[in-house]
Amino acid sequence: MSAEPALPTGEGGLSRAVPPSVPEGCTRVRLDVAYDGTAYAGWARQADQPTVQGVLEDALATVLRTPSPRLTGAGRTDAGVHARGQVAHVDLPPQVAADRLLLRRLNGLLPLDVRVRRVSVAPAGFDARFAAVSRTYRYRVADRPELVDPLRRADVLVWPRELDLAAMRAACPAMLGEHDFAAYCRRREGATTVRGLLALGWERPPDGLLVMTVQADAFCHSMVRSLVGAMLAVGEGRRAPDWPASLLTLGARSSAVVVAPPHGLVLEAVEYPPDDELLSRQTVTRNRRA
Amino acid sequence: MSAEPALPTGEGGLSRAVPPSVPEGCTRVRLDVAYDGTAYAGWARQADQPTVQGVLEDALATVLRTPSPRLTGAGRTDAGVHARGQVAHVDLPPQVAADRLLLRRLNGLLPLDVRVRRVSVAPAGFDARFAAVSRTYRYRVADRPELVDPLRRADVLVWPRELDLAAMRAACPAMLGEHDFAAYCRRREGATTVRGLLALGWERPPDGLLVMTVQADAFCHSMVRSLVGAMLAVGEGRRAPDWPASLLTLGARSSAVVVAPPHGLVLEAVEYPPDDELLSRQTVTRNRRA
Repeated sequence: MSAEPALPTGEGGLSRAVPPSVPEGCTRVRLDVAYDGTAYAGWARQADQPTVQGVLEDALATVLRTPSPRLTGAGRTDAGVHARGQVAHVDLPPQVAADRLLLRRLNGLLPLDVRVRRVSVAPAGFDARFAAVSRTYRYRVADRPELVDPLRRADVLVWPRELDLAAMRAACPAMLGEHDFAAYCRRREGATTVRGLLALGWERPPDGLLVMTVQADAFCHSMVRSLVGAMLAVGEGRRAPDWPASLLTLGARSSAVVVAPPHGLVLEAVEYPPDDELLSRQTVTRNRRA
Repeated sequence: MSAEPALPTGEGGLSRAVPPSVPEGCTRVRLDVAYDGTAYAGWARQADQPTVQGVLEDALATVLRTPSPRLTGAGRTDAGVHARGQVAHVDLPPQVAADRLLLRRLNGLLPLDVRVRRVSVAPAGFDARFAAVSRTYRYRVADRPELVDPLRRADVLVWPRELDLAAMRAACPAMLGEHDFAAYCRRREGATTVRGLLALGWERPPDGLLVMTVQADAFCHSMVRSLVGAMLAVGEGRRAPDWPASLLTLGARSSAVVVAPPHGLVLEAVEYPPDDELLSRQTVTRNRRA
């Protein structure tokens, strides 16, 4: 989820990457997107499989009557992962960007499992991926099979045993802050696995499900689902509440952590700074993992 | 939806039908059931098509290792209609009825689009269909395509034009009370179309959708979806707010009323009287439509 690939390493770590500007004669448009990821091989476009980016770019191409324009998404969700608050940007000719029917046209072309919730002209300095300050994900678990509302089942993991909410809650505070989440990440060459966890918690809302909410500046690949996997081990009593945080000292992927299935996971929101800080945020993001 | 077939007509309308009792040596069990009706040809069992009653009876037969026991449901929802609060009963051998694992076993056998939410031994005099005092349905409409959350889309009708909530609200009060809903019903020989409407209203919750809630003692066939169809005509401004109630004097099916699609409709709840009134309620229901 929202895996960040290796960024070009600045020489001596002191370079200041300059955010690329919007192409001449184009207007940057922000798309707020929601999808049921069940039928998709994830967000990122692939040549031979249906992806969310792919269907969105194809719909845009139909509206524009041009080859697919390139979308940039804030979080590259994995196959089967959903989104309610994905954010993307695309640079369009001004007359298209200003078309008040663009939202309706896109949704008329898109399948019902992908919706553009909002279209807006992006403020100066906006970049869906690099200007984001954080992402918020939720993971929903039914620890008794009768808790699942069949009309709300697409984003619920059914777990065969009851889970201890108090134990899972106790495991959260020690995870907060900046850590090397290598134990929870699928490693990519040259990419750091240091991330800042801003929020992590479990609750049991009135529908009886268990819901984990996690917010971080960014997530490395498989990180949220690995966190869920570790928490489920705590909830079952197979691990102590201090176990998930103890893995943060490993500095390497832990085979003891099981990656939870994708369908319980939803990218709920992407957070951005005030408009006048968008450009500086881009610069910070582009440099920080070098 | 919860269509009531013709009941045997009492001679002179004065007969008092005696509710059939639970078979000797059996315990009556109440099942609270939820389903996504998308894949089903409705509630009622059919020989050649998948139905909710069919998959439930098949799951019960597997647990019991006997031929399918017969389920009685409170509302016979149409093809494609959903339920969150369907209620059914089945008469089972006492040792099965008392099995605390029955709920888990049934859900282990059922597909994920059908869930038994609760299993309980029914109080004396309980009959899922005839002891019910009312049913509550909800119908959800998105009058702008971007309002649909793809993860919550199974029970939402997408309507291509914006609807006037105030006008639809204005149409509701005159519908309340006991009327001959013949204009809104698919007529069945020998069955009355008089029904008592206990509640009818529209609201726009924070998700932006339009939601109609309707409660009645019972509904004749296609009645809820016909009410929705009439209300949508009001919401679009094609009909005045007093039009839906004006049809109540017709005494016959109105071809001006379009039946709304099934997938926006959910049977939310079935209401029962206090336990000591269950038996008398059965008698009233069995006689009232004769």
